[in-house]
Amino acid sequence: MAKYVYFFGNGKAEGNKDMKNLLGGKGAGLAEMTSIGLPVPAGFTITTEVCDLYYKNNKKYPEGLEKEVEENMKKLEKASGKKFGDPENPLLVSVRSGAPISMPGMMETILNLGLNSKTVEGLAKKTNNRRFALDAYRRFIMMYGSTAKGIDREKFDHIFEKVKEEQTRKRLQIPEDKKVNDIDVNAEELEEVVKKFKDLYKKELGVDFPEDVKEQLWGSIDAVFGSWMAEKAVTYRKVENIKGIIGTAVNVVQMVFGNMGENSGTGVAFTRDPNTGEDVFYGDYLFNAQGEDVVAGIRTPIKLSELEKKDPSVYKQLVEIRNKLEKHYKDMQDIEFTVEEGKLYMLQCRTGKRNARAAFKIAYDMVKEKLITKEEAILRLKGKDIEGLFYPIIDPKEADNKKKMYLVSGIDAVPGAAVGKVVFTAKEAEQQAANGEKVILVRRETSPEDVGGMHAASGILTATGGKTSHAAVVARGWGKCCIVGCEKLVIDYDKKQMTVNDKVVKQGDEITLDGSTGEVFLGALKLIKPELPDEYKEIMKWVDETRKIKVRTNADTPYDSENARKLGAEGIGLCRTEHMFFDTEERRLAIQEMIVADTVDGRIKALDKLLPFQREDFKGIFKAMDGYPVTIRLIDPPLHEFVPHDEKGQRKLAETVGVPFEKVKDRVEQLHEANPMLGHRGCRLTITYPEILDMQVRAIIEAAVEVAKNGVKVYPEIMIPLTIDAKEFHLLETRVRKVADEIIAKSNTKVEYLVGTMIEVPRAALLANKIAQYAEFFSFGTNDLTQMTMGLSRDDAGKFLPDYVDEKKTGIFKNDPFQVLDQEGVGLLVKMGIEKGRSTRPNLKVGICGEHGGEPESVKFCVSVGMNYVSCSPFRVPIARLAAAQAAIEQGKK
Amino acid sequence: MAKYVYFFGNGKAEGNKDMKNLLGGKGAGLAEMTSIGLPVPAGFTITTEVCDLYYKNNKKYPEGLEKEVEENMKKLEKASGKKFGDPENPLLVSVRSGAPISMPGMMETILNLGLNSKTVEGLAKKTNNRRFALDAYRRFIMMYGSTAKGIDREKFDHIFEKVKEEQTRKRLQIPEDKKVNDIDVNAEELEEVVKKFKDLYKKELGVDFPEDVKEQLWGSIDAVFGSWMAEKAVTYRKVENIKGIIGTAVNVVQMVFGNMGENSGTGVAFTRDPNTGEDVFYGDYLFNAQGEDVVAGIRTPIKLSELEKKDPSVYKQLVEIRNKLEKHYKDMQDIEFTVEEGKLYMLQCRTGKRNARAAFKIAYDMVKEKLITKEEAILRLKGKDIEGLFYPIIDPKEADNKKKMYLVSGIDAVPGAAVGKVVFTAKEAEQQAANGEKVILVRRETSPEDVGGMHAASGILTATGGKTSHAAVVARGWGKCCIVGCEKLVIDYDKKQMTVNDKVVKQGDEITLDGSTGEVFLGALKLIKPELPDEYKEIMKWVDETRKIKVRTNADTPYDSENARKLGAEGIGLCRTEHMFFDTEERRLAIQEMIVADTVDGRIKALDKLLPFQREDFKGIFKAMDGYPVTIRLIDPPLHEFVPHDEKGQRKLAETVGVPFEKVKDRVEQLHEANPMLGHRGCRLTITYPEILDMQVRAIIEAAVEVAKNGVKVYPEIMIPLTIDAKEFHLLETRVRKVADEIIAKSNTKVEYLVGTMIEVPRAALLANKIAQYAEFFSFGTNDLTQMTMGLSRDDAGKFLPDYVDEKKTGIFKNDPFQVLDQEGVGLLVKMGIEKGRSTRPNLKVGICGEHGGEPESVKFCVSVGMNYVSCSPFRVPIARLAAAQAAIEQGKK
Repeated sequence: MAKYVYFFGNGKAEGNKDMKNLLGGKGAGLAEMTSIGLPVPAGFTITTEVCDLYYKNNKKYPEGLEKEVEENMKKLEKASGKKFGDPENPLLVSVRSGAPISMPGMMETILNLGLNSKTVEGLAKKTNNRRFALDAYRRFIMMYGSTAKGIDREKFDHIFEKVKEEQTRKRLQIPEDKKVNDIDVNAEELEEVVKKFKDLYKKELGVDFPEDVKEQLWGSIDAVFGSWMAEKAVTYRKVENIKGIIGTAVNVVQMVFGNMGENSGTGVAFTRDPNTGEDVFYGDYLFNAQGEDVVAGIRTPIKLSELEKKDPSVYKQLVEIRNKLEKHYKDMQDIEFTVEEGKLYMLQCRTGKRNARAAFKIAYDMVKEKLITKEEAILRLKGKDIEGLFYPIIDPKEADNKKKMYLVSGIDAVPGAAVGKVVFTAKEAEQQAANGEKVILVRRETSPEDVGGMHAASGILTATGGKTSHAAVVARGWGKCCIVGCEKLVIDYDKKQMTVNDKVVKQGDEITLDGSTGEVFLGALKLIKPELPDEYKEIMKWVDETRKIKVRTNADTPYDSENARKLGAEGIGLCRTEHMFFDTEERRLAIQEMIVADTVDGRIKALDKLLPFQREDFKGIFKAMDGYPVTIRLIDPPLHEFVPHDEKGQRKLAETVGVPFEKVKDRVEQLHEANPMLGHRGCRLTITYPEILDMQVRAIIEAAVEVAKNGVKVYPEIMIPLTIDAKEFHLLETRVRKVADEIIAKSNTKVEYLVGTMIEVPRAALLANKIAQYAEFFSFGTNDLTQMTMGLSRDDAGKFLPDYVDEKKTGIFKNDPFQVLDQEGVGLLVKMGIEKGRSTRPNLKVGICGEHGGEPESVKFCVSVGMNYVSCSPFRVPIARLAAAQAAIEQGKK
Repeated sequence: MAKYVYFFGNGKAEGNKDMKNLLGGKGAGLAEMTSIGLPVPAGFTITTEVCDLYYKNNKKYPEGLEKEVEENMKKLEKASGKKFGDPENPLLVSVRSGAPISMPGMMETILNLGLNSKTVEGLAKKTNNRRFALDAYRRFIMMYGSTAKGIDREKFDHIFEKVKEEQTRKRLQIPEDKKVNDIDVNAEELEEVVKKFKDLYKKELGVDFPEDVKEQLWGSIDAVFGSWMAEKAVTYRKVENIKGIIGTAVNVVQMVFGNMGENSGTGVAFTRDPNTGEDVFYGDYLFNAQGEDVVAGIRTPIKLSELEKKDPSVYKQLVEIRNKLEKHYKDMQDIEFTVEEGKLYMLQCRTGKRNARAAFKIAYDMVKEKLITKEEAILRLKGKDIEGLFYPIIDPKEADNKKKMYLVSGIDAVPGAAVGKVVFTAKEAEQQAANGEKVILVRRETSPEDVGGMHAASGILTATGGKTSHAAVVARGWGKCCIVGCEKLVIDYDKKQMTVNDKVVKQGDEITLDGSTGEVFLGALKLIKPELPDEYKEIMKWVDETRKIKVRTNADTPYDSENARKLGAEGIGLCRTEHMFFDTEERRLAIQEMIVADTVDGRIKALDKLLPFQREDFKGIFKAMDGYPVTIRLIDPPLHEFVPHDEKGQRKLAETVGVPFEKVKDRVEQLHEANPMLGHRGCRLTITYPEILDMQVRAIIEAAVEVAKNGVKVYPEIMIPLTIDAKEFHLLETRVRKVADEIIAKSNTKVEYLVGTMIEVPRAALLANKIAQYAEFFSFGTNDLTQMTMGLSRDDAGKFLPDYVDEKKTGIFKNDPFQVLDQEGVGLLVKMGIEKGRSTRPNLKVGICGEHGGEPESVKFCVSVGMNYVSCSPFRVPIARLAAAQAAIEQGKK
C-alpha cells in the first residue's frame, strides 16, 4: 500500500535527506536532523505525491490519507505526551509547506494549531501563563484566518493596533512618540483581541472560527496544497525555470515556543557567512519570540555573536549543532531554531544559499579542512557562481531605489549591470562614447552595422530578439550587459525617444540595466565591481587539472584574444572574420565596393584594400594566442548585411566608389532575401566569389608567416562555414591549400595549418563521413544547426518559443534550445556527425563553437560525445572549464 | 594494352550496340548493324575514352593511338580494296563525331576525305566521271575548311554562287527568275570553284589546303575532339542537363556516294512515324545527292512512299532493313542511308526520337505485335511523354514566327503554352478575366494574396524564384503554364510596364509563354491542344496493374479533386486548407479579422465565420474523393501571408472589422519575420491559437459526418504540419481527437479518421520513433525538409544554386534538389524517419506530399524506402503512376 506520511521523532525518522523530492526540502531536513540526533520536535510529513494526486484527482486526497494522518497524530501525541484537542494537556502543532525546492511563492507557516476556546485555557493552566496562551491563540487565529483562509492580514493587524492604542497605551501611559510593543499587551487585552479576531473571521467567512482541531488541521493542509497552484507560486516557478517537481509536502510538527519568556527565543542562521564565505557563525536571534516575529521585523534581532555573551548556554548548544551539521552535510547550512525555556530545538536545515564569492571560499576552505575532496568542491560550484564573480552589479544598498526607479523588464541576455545615457543609433553611441559619455544603446534590433556603436556603449537594450539574437550574441562575446526582447519598448527613432506604457524616455536620459535579471531602471543606480578572490584562482587550477577537453574561445580581435587567454582559453575556436570588415569606415567602404563591383577584377581590387587590415588583425590574434590554435572562419553572413540600406548611405557609397547611385540601390535590392538564414551566405559566397576566399586565406597565411618569423608559435585552422556537401568542401579546401601553400613555400618558413569545416547544416552532419574525407576538423555550429534542425529562426522564435518552454501552457521543451543544447534532437545529429566523421578519419578533431559551448549542461554533452574542445565567449571560458571538469568527474564515475 | 579503336566491316565488328558510352551512339550503331548483316561501309571508331584522355592530358592523344589508327586504316584499305591517298584507286572516308547522346552542338561530318589534287584525278578516272570527282572535291574542301578549320561557310557559298551566276547561268542561259542548281554546274566550272576554294583556304589560314591525306585525317579528328568543349556543345549539355558522359567518339568510314547519278541517292528515315507512332515507313530520299544536301535543304526530297514507285528495288532493300532493325532493336529506329548506284548502304541507326503521342502508340503497338512485353513498354516511357500529352503547345507551324517574336527566356516551371494580355496585378487579372479576356499575370514574385489572380490568368510569368517558388508550385498544382526566374524582366508596377533590355511591354500587350522551354514571345502565337490517345489509356491500365504503391494528389478544391480523380489519383495526400481562406473577399476578411483580434473570443468569433466555408469546401472534396482517403493539413503559412501589407488594404480591413487603423498596422508590423520559413507557422500557430485547430477540425469532421450520412465513403486524415516534437504533436493530436470525437459521437454516424503529421523539419525525422507513438501516419513534406536539411531557402536559392548544379562551374549537385529529391542527404533523413517511425508503429502509413512526389526519380526512391503512397499535383499523377510502375519492375528485378 502507498505510504503518504513519514514520521520523525525521538531520534528516529522514516525519511532522510535524500528524499527531498518526496518529502520536500524541509521534511527531508527534519527527518535527517532527527536521525543524526539533533533536537527536533516530533512531527510528520505528508508527501509531495499527495499534492500531485490531489491535483490529478480533481482536488481530492488519495484514499487512506486521512487514516494515515490520524495514525501519525496518534504517534505524535505519544511522542509529545500531549493530546491534540485535549483541554487539559493540549498538543499544539505547526503546519508548514515544503517543496523540494525552496519556493517563496507558497504558503509558509501556521503556528499554534490546536488551540480553541477550551485548549487555550488548558495551555494557560499548564504553562501557568495565561498571557502566553492567549498570545498564541491570537497568533493562530490570525495566521489561520489570513494564510489558510485568505482574510486580509491588515484587518487583523488593524484590530490588534487599535487595542494596543486604545487600551495598552492608556493603561501603561506610553507617550505618543513611543511604540507600543506586542509584549506590552496584557492577557485581558489579548482576550479582547481574540474575541475581535473571531468576530472578524465570522464576518469575513460567514462561519465561526473552528473549535474542532481536526478541522483546523485539514483546513491548513488544504491551504498548503492549494497554495501550490496559486498564481504567485506558478509565476515563481516560471520565472525561476523550476520544473520537474510534482508538488509540495506538508509538515506537521509539534510546537515549541520561543515566546515563553526571556529564556526562550527564536533564530535563523547560516553555518558560515553566506556573503563572504568566512568560517564564522552567522545569524540573528530574537528573545521571547516566535518565528514569524523575526520575519515580520517587529523587533530588531541580535547577532549571534551577541548571543554568545547574552545566553552562553544557548549559544553553546547552537555551536555544537552547527559543527555537527557541517560535518554531516559537508556544506554550509541555513538553519531555523527555537529555544523554549533554555532548550534548543531545530526547525529547519537546508543547504544555504550563498553568493559567488562565498561559494568559492566555502568550497576551497572545506577542501582545506578535509571536509570534502577537490572533486566534491568542483561539483558543488555552478556556472552562475563564476559569472557572479565577474560582472559589475547594482550595489545591493540600492534596493529601495530599484523599486522606485523600475521601468520595464526584458530578457536577461548578458548578466552584469550598466548605467548610461540613452542613445538610439550606433553612430550616436560612438560619438558620445568618444566624448567620454557612458551610453546605453537602445535599438529595436541590432545588425552588424551597429557593432561599432554596440562596442562603444556600456550596455545594450533591444526591443526584439531572444538570447541568441545578434545583440545578445555580440554582447555576450564582450561580456557586455545586454537586455533583449523588451517588447514593451516603443522606440521612435525620429523623435529620439522611447515610451514604456506612458513613460517617455528621451535621448540623453540616464537608465540602468541589470542584465542578470532583465530589469531596466529609469535613472542611475550605483554599480560595484567585485575583485576575483584567491580561492577562485586555486579552485580553477584544480578544475584545469581535472578536465579532459580543451576550452577555447570565440574571439575576433587581439583585445578579445588577450582577454580570453587571461580567462584560461586554450586557443580560439571561432574567429569571425566579418567583424573585421566593419571596424572602420575605410574597411566598410572596401567591402561595400567589393559587393557593388560587377567584375572579378573589380572585386579583387576592392578586396586588395581589405587584405592588409585583415592581415594585421590576424597578426595580433596569433600573437595573443602564441602556442595555441586559432580557428578562423571564412566570410559567413549574407552580403546584404554589409551594405547600407538607407538612401543616404547608398548615395555616399555610390559617390565614394564612383558608381551610379541607381546601381548601388539596385544591387542592395537584389541582395534582399526572403530567408537570409537559408540564403546566399557561408561558403556559398566563396563558391560564387572565390576571390574573397583567396584574399582571406592570403591574409591569414601571410600573417602567420610573419609572426612565425618572429618566433610566435602559430597554428591556424581555416574553417569553411555552412558546408553541405563533400564536393563543395573539397573544391574550397583545394583552393585554400593552393593559396596557402604557395605563400608558405615562398616564405621559407614552416607554418602548419589545418582546413576544416563548420557542421551547422543538418545535411553536413548526415554526410559527415564523406566530408571528413577532406576536412581535418569539424566545429559544430550549434546555433545554426539548432535553427535548421528544429526549423526555428532565432530572430523570430521570441513570438512562440516561450509557449513551448512555458510549462503551464505546453511544457514541450525543458529549455530554450538556443540556451541549452537540444540533446534529444540536435544532439543526435551532433553525435551522428562525430561518429560518421571519425568513421572516415579516426583522428578527426572535433569542437563546438556555438553559444552552447559555454553552457554547462551542453558542455557536459560535448564531453560525453567525445569532442576535443569547446569554444565560447571569453567571459564564459571559466564556466566552460568548470563544466568540463564536472563532466570529467561525473562521467568518470559511471 | 589499352584499345582505342574499334573496327567494323564485312559483317564483323569489334563493337556492339551496348557500347554506346565507349563508341558513341553512331559508332555502336554502325558496329551493331555490321554484326547483324546489314550493308554498312567498313570503318572504325575512335573511342570516347580518347576524347577524355585528350582533355585530361592537355590536348595530347594517348600513346599508341596514332599507330592504332594507322593499323585500322590498313584494315579499311583491305576491306575496301582501295588505298588511302592512292592516286590510282583512292580510298575516301567520312569523319563524323558521335557522342553517347546525340548532341547537335558538336561537329557533324566531313565527307570525301582523302581527296587532293592527285587523288581527285584518280577518282575521276576510276568513276569515269570527272564532274563527280570535282564535285566531291569542292565539297570536301568546303567541309574541311569550314567545319574542321573554322572558315566562315558563307565565304565558300559566296564563291560557288558567283561561279554559278556568272558562268553556269550564262552557259545554260537559265532565266533570271529560275535558280541555278548545283547539278547544273559542269566540271570546268567546278575546277574553277576548287581553285578558288583553295585560294580562300590559303588566304584565311595562311597555309595551303593539305595535300597530305593523313594530315587531312588528323585535322578532322582534331576538329571532332575539339568540338566537344566548344561553347555551343557545352551550352547544349548544360541546357539539356546532360551529365556523366566523358566525350565524343570519332567515326572514320569508307565513303559511299549518293551523288553518282540517278541510280544513287541518300535519305533519312524513321521505321515508324515519329509524330503519330503509326506503323508506316517514314522518311525522305534525295536522288543523286550526298547526305549534307538533305540537311541543307538545297533540293526538296521525296517521301519514301514515292520512292516505292520511283525506285522499287531500293525501296525493297530499305523495307527489308527496316524490318530487320525493328526485330533486332525492338524499337523504332532513326536511320541514315546512302544508295550508290543501286546498292543501299546504312550510315546510321539509333533509337528514334518521337513525340509523346507516338511514344504511347509505338509502345502499345509493339506489345500487341509481341515485339516487347508490357513491362518493357512501361519502362520505355518517360514522364515527359505523359506531360506532352496534356499541355497545350505552340503550333509547330509557328516556328518562323517564334524566331521573330522571341523576347526573353526564364525557367520552365510548368510546361504547356499560354497566350494573353499582360497584366501586372492579381486584381487586374481577376477583373480582366471576368470580362472574358485571356491574361498573363506578370509579377516580380507571387504570394498567397495573388492566388485569385493567378487562377484567373492563362499563364504566369515572374522575374524571380525557382521551380519551387510560390508561383511555380501553385501553377503546377493547376497545370497552368508558368515561367519563373526570368531575371532580365524589369517590372515597373507604377508605369504598368516591363522592359527587357530596351523593349518595353505595356499592360494589355499580348505575349505568348512556352512553359516547356521557358521562352517568352512578344505577340500571340497559335496554340493547339492535343487529345488523349487510346494507347495512353491502355498502357496506364497496365501501369496501374504493375505498381505497388498508391498515387494520391495534392488538391485544395472540389474542382482539383475531381480533375485528379480523372487523372487516376487514389485519394488526396495534401489538402492545403489555407487557400480556402483566400478564395473570396469575405473569407479573406474573416481570417484577417481573426488575426487582428486580440482575445480568444474575438478570434473564435472571426473563425466562426470561416467555419461554414471550410465545411462546404471539405464536403465537395470528400464527395469527389468518395471511397478514397483525404489528408487535410491544418493551417500552415505564417499569418503575415494573410494580411494586407499596403496602407489601403490595412485601412479597409480596419474599417470593415471596426478596429483602429493603427492597430491593424501595428499588428501587421508585429507579424513581420526575419526568416518566415523558420518562423511562427505550421502547428506553432495552433499551439499559440488552438482555436484555429478547433475550427478546422470541426469543419472537417462536420463535413465528413454530413457526406457520410448521404452514403459517401469518407476517410479524413488530419495532418499536423511542421511538427518537431512528440509532446507537441501529442498535445495537438489530443485536442484534434477531443473536437472530432465529440462531433462524431453526437452525429450517430460512424466516421473513421486518422491523425498524423508532416515530417518536414529534420528534428521530426530524427525523433520519428517518438512521434510515431501518437501519429497514425507520416507524410514527408520534402520541400521544406529539403530547405531545412540543406539550409537552402527555395525563394533565395536562385542566386547561387545554379552555380552548384552547373557542371562547368562546380558540379556539386547533379540536380536541383527542389526538382529531384536529394537522396544522399535529405533521402537519408527520409529513410531514417520511416525506419524509426515503423520501429515504434510497424503499420505506420507513410507518404510524401512534397513536389518530389511527382518526379520520377524521386518516386522510385519513395518506392524503394517503402512508402505507402506518393502524392503530387493533379497533372503529375499519371507521371507518378508510371514512375511507380517502373520502380516496381526495376526493383522487382533486383
